[in-house]
Amino acid sequence: MQHLTVRDTMLYALGLGLGADPLDEKQLRFVYEKDLQALPTMAVVLAAPHAWLKKSGTGFGTKSVHGEQTLEIHKPLPVEGELVGVPKLASVVDKGADKGAVIATERKVYDRKTGDHLCTLVQTTFARGDGGFGGPTGPVRAPHAIPETPAQLVCDLPIAPQAALIYRLSGDYNPLHADPQHAKDVGFPKPILHGLCTLGMAGHALLRTCCDYDPKRLTRMEVRFSAPVYPGETLRTEMWRNGNVISFRCLAAEREKVVLSNGRAEISA
Amino acid sequence: MQHLTVRDTMLYALGLGLGADPLDEKQLRFVYEKDLQALPTMAVVLAAPHAWLKKSGTGFGTKSVHGEQTLEIHKPLPVEGELVGVPKLASVVDKGADKGAVIATERKVYDRKTGDHLCTLVQTTFARGDGGFGGPTGPVRAPHAIPETPAQLVCDLPIAPQAALIYRLSGDYNPLHADPQHAKDVGFPKPILHGLCTLGMAGHALLRTCCDYDPKRLTRMEVRFSAPVYPGETLRTEMWRNGNVISFRCLAAEREKVVLSNGRAEISA
Repeated sequence: MQHLTVRDTMLYALGLGLGADPLDEKQLRFVYEKDLQALPTMAVVLAAPHAWLKKSGTGFGTKSVHGEQTLEIHKPLPVEGELVGVPKLASVVDKGADKGAVIATERKVYDRKTGDHLCTLVQTTFARGDGGFGGPTGPVRAPHAIPETPAQLVCDLPIAPQAALIYRLSGDYNPLHADPQHAKDVGFPKPILHGLCTLGMAGHALLRTCCDYDPKRLTRMEVRFSAPVYPGETLRTEMWRNGNVISFRCLAAEREKVVLSNGRAEISA
Repeated sequence: MQHLTVRDTMLYALGLGLGADPLDEKQLRFVYEKDLQALPTMAVVLAAPHAWLKKSGTGFGTKSVHGEQTLEIHKPLPVEGELVGVPKLASVVDKGADKGAVIATERKVYDRKTGDHLCTLVQTTFARGDGGFGGPTGPVRAPHAIPETPAQLVCDLPIAPQAALIYRLSGDYNPLHADPQHAKDVGFPKPILHGLCTLGMAGHALLRTCCDYDPKRLTRMEVRFSAPVYPGETLRTEMWRNGNVISFRCLAAEREKVVLSNGRAEISA
């Protein structure tokens, strides 16, 4: 169980960079206790299993990477309370010895007091080097296709140099996001941003661009993590709207590199 | 009693802007749990009485301002533990009905487990409009004099636009530092930075410039708060060294305005 406080809710939003325009009253409602609202993407840190896949005991270690994430919001998230997560191994797909295994885990999060089912998360982890165990080779869901036309809407958000250091206080203390030596040891030139922080920033871009900062309107997101993001870069979110569905992707703007792809969001009117 | 966690210690330092150069391993030791150290200025938020002078029940209300602060570190601060504060009203000076009252409160902070006396804080609050009650008119200590020669050492530190929003999660939730309307209501054009955040940033400047980021070397600070600081400005700390004593002051660099004056710090070799 997680005891979520108002302070945790504000810290999550600050970790994504909200409050960077401290006079914007719409942003302020996510980082200041008066009329506080929770960002829908906070779902990903609620009652989280403390990244067990990354712990040495599971054997996945540093070779596992976060592949895809889906989140679905059933009820607006509370700003404080007691939350219970019910995890489930959803599927394991064997991509072969040369590629690895794809493990999907699902987590349903409930409000302990009301019993409300708040949100459902599905996380796909790609365990490089753990394939070839004779497991099932499917089913593999096709990723959401992004239009090939130029984006209809674009939102640039700066990523503070210390963004990962703030974001990790929301619960994912993997040293890959803080420790320069550790990052080098596992093959990165320097610490990278949490994939779920990038997802949260994409959620911010969607709220800002398509939802007038009303968190109730963003009800579902799915993304694929395609490349590392480094703190200090600018995150550019490109969006295409089709009714209540927003297709989107994110780029590290200075490198023109797609870092989050195949994004699909559902918004209500 | 305050239950201090490693997360609190990192969040305090992040609120001052440490980690803005996330590859600087010396800064990292204050914002990352590996070999974590506490900043000496964290003393000001330890076992703090939740700003009781600002609460309406005391009658000081919004007319009271933080005048001076002294902190003395007796033992290096722990990064986690249970801390007990023993507050004491140190003195009340009546400056007359037209000026107000100057109230000095002292707080000694102890480690509950070891019994160690960690630090002593003395805070002076200037209660405008509360003078003229026939109280003692002294003693008034002369503020530390700053040399009139050009500064020997200068350190510029940027103040992030959201600095006050992050800093306040260390315990001082006064809306003056977050709420644009509230700030206007009490006579400021927009939310101001916490005086104690400015003090912490001056401490950072001293550690960086004079102590090679060794927190054990900064053992005492006293300052006078002379003007408001706004998030987004650059804080310039000017320093003069005389043996183990550093005289210092801070300016809002863009406005060339002295915001923290009569600073005196003691450092060990």
